[in-house]
Amino acid sequence: MKVTNETLREFVLSMDMNSTLKKAAIYTLTLPGKRLRPTLLLASAKDFGVDERDALKAAVAIEMMHAASLIHDDLPAIDNDGYRRGKPSNHVVFGENFAILAGDFLFAKALDLCNEIGNTHLSEAFSKTLLELIDGEARDVFLEKKSVEVDEILKMYRKKTGALFAFAFSFGPRMSGKVVKKYEEAGYFFGLSFQILDDVLDLTSTFEKMGKTPHKDDKQQKSTLVSKIGLEDSKKYADTLYGEVIERIKDSPNLLEEVKKVKTLLEGKI
Amino acid sequence: MKVTNETLREFVLSMDMNSTLKKAAIYTLTLPGKRLRPTLLLASAKDFGVDERDALKAAVAIEMMHAASLIHDDLPAIDNDGYRRGKPSNHVVFGENFAILAGDFLFAKALDLCNEIGNTHLSEAFSKTLLELIDGEARDVFLEKKSVEVDEILKMYRKKTGALFAFAFSFGPRMSGKVVKKYEEAGYFFGLSFQILDDVLDLTSTFEKMGKTPHKDDKQQKSTLVSKIGLEDSKKYADTLYGEVIERIKDSPNLLEEVKKVKTLLEGKI
Repeated sequence: MKVTNETLREFVLSMDMNSTLKKAAIYTLTLPGKRLRPTLLLASAKDFGVDERDALKAAVAIEMMHAASLIHDDLPAIDNDGYRRGKPSNHVVFGENFAILAGDFLFAKALDLCNEIGNTHLSEAFSKTLLELIDGEARDVFLEKKSVEVDEILKMYRKKTGALFAFAFSFGPRMSGKVVKKYEEAGYFFGLSFQILDDVLDLTSTFEKMGKTPHKDDKQQKSTLVSKIGLEDSKKYADTLYGEVIERIKDSPNLLEEVKKVKTLLEGKI
Repeated sequence: MKVTNETLREFVLSMDMNSTLKKAAIYTLTLPGKRLRPTLLLASAKDFGVDERDALKAAVAIEMMHAASLIHDDLPAIDNDGYRRGKPSNHVVFGENFAILAGDFLFAKALDLCNEIGNTHLSEAFSKTLLELIDGEARDVFLEKKSVEVDEILKMYRKKTGALFAFAFSFGPRMSGKVVKKYEEAGYFFGLSFQILDDVLDLTSTFEKMGKTPHKDDKQQKSTLVSKIGLEDSKKYADTLYGEVIERIKDSPNLLEEVKKVKTLLEGKI
């Protein structure tokens, strides 16, 4: 099972909503992307034998929540990025008003899809994930042009990037009523490692490879782990974190396989 | 039981979130306001004997969702209003970046509070309410500088204003597993009536009475019911709708009492 552009499009089109809002939502949802979060969530679901229809809804929901955060993050008042995944950002195409509302819409639809599954533990975990994500965004604003401690940077990464992966990794055990802690930890470590490698890429890559403006952190004088401890030590730390991830998911064959694929993919880019 | 500024403040302050984000959220939440939605929700809860802690959480949640929609609505890219309830709008005080994120935060916290109650029907009704609200906002954008039909205006009012009242009115029966339809209808009619009177006020009132920029609809050449059928017929229609509300809630003494109070309050202003 996979979350394709067709799947994402259908989930939006079937709704009775304003058509421009739907177009704006579909635009960012279907930009070329790796669909990491839904893929990892579906792998976790498979390892724990979760009902496929429920898993698909949650996988679409997590991609929607991710897309919503990207749309708001790119806005002129926040990160002011005119490009995303090699294409003009949502607000460049649909205007700031529809970008703000399309982000709101995707947040709401994500939570609604998750609520439709009818598992109160899952619903609560998802709304708490959204709160962490937004807290991460707010903390990110303060990393601009400010000298901050490494701990504060890592806390922001944990929230802004780690929370969604923690939800994806723990989806299978949570839906099966199993203990989720180990999988949540793995997801947070994975998110941290992923964000650090993204910072490395920001510094070393080109627009063509990244699909968004490179060297942006540097231009905005943003504090990143790389700016604090250097490229080599950052890469080493990302490797250590990756080890912590593998240690926790070694008994989950599907999740393990997908995590290894992501690692190979990222290494090819750096 | 009442939702006071102190209650609203405590629900935000107890969270482990970025402090500026919390300040921005509390700012709009505690602006002088009538707290209509939580008051009506609590009355509905009382009529159906809902647990008081659950009712309080839902009452705070509905006020948070309302505040979130006001913050995003006032943004320069959407309604561009520098005042709300007699004070500078959220983005004027905290900047557009924090206003966008504070809106996101309040949406998320509202859904999370509702999810904590642990009733899947309630959670789903609440996320569907948020979707309607956002659809209403999007439809509102198209009412600017466009000649639209009365039906389209009423559909927008139903979503943008009616949905939250429908959720408030039906809270009691929903939590008690009773049939919610009659109460939802009453809430939608109430919202419509309320929005029409708000349009009337926009045309006839002053800044001091409204706490926000008056004659705005007119300046923006926005289509409203008043601009379509005139002041007197609009007031008559609002009265008819009010009758439909009373008819449906006549067996719910607390809700009936609160609705009558709102009616008296609005009549005093017009």
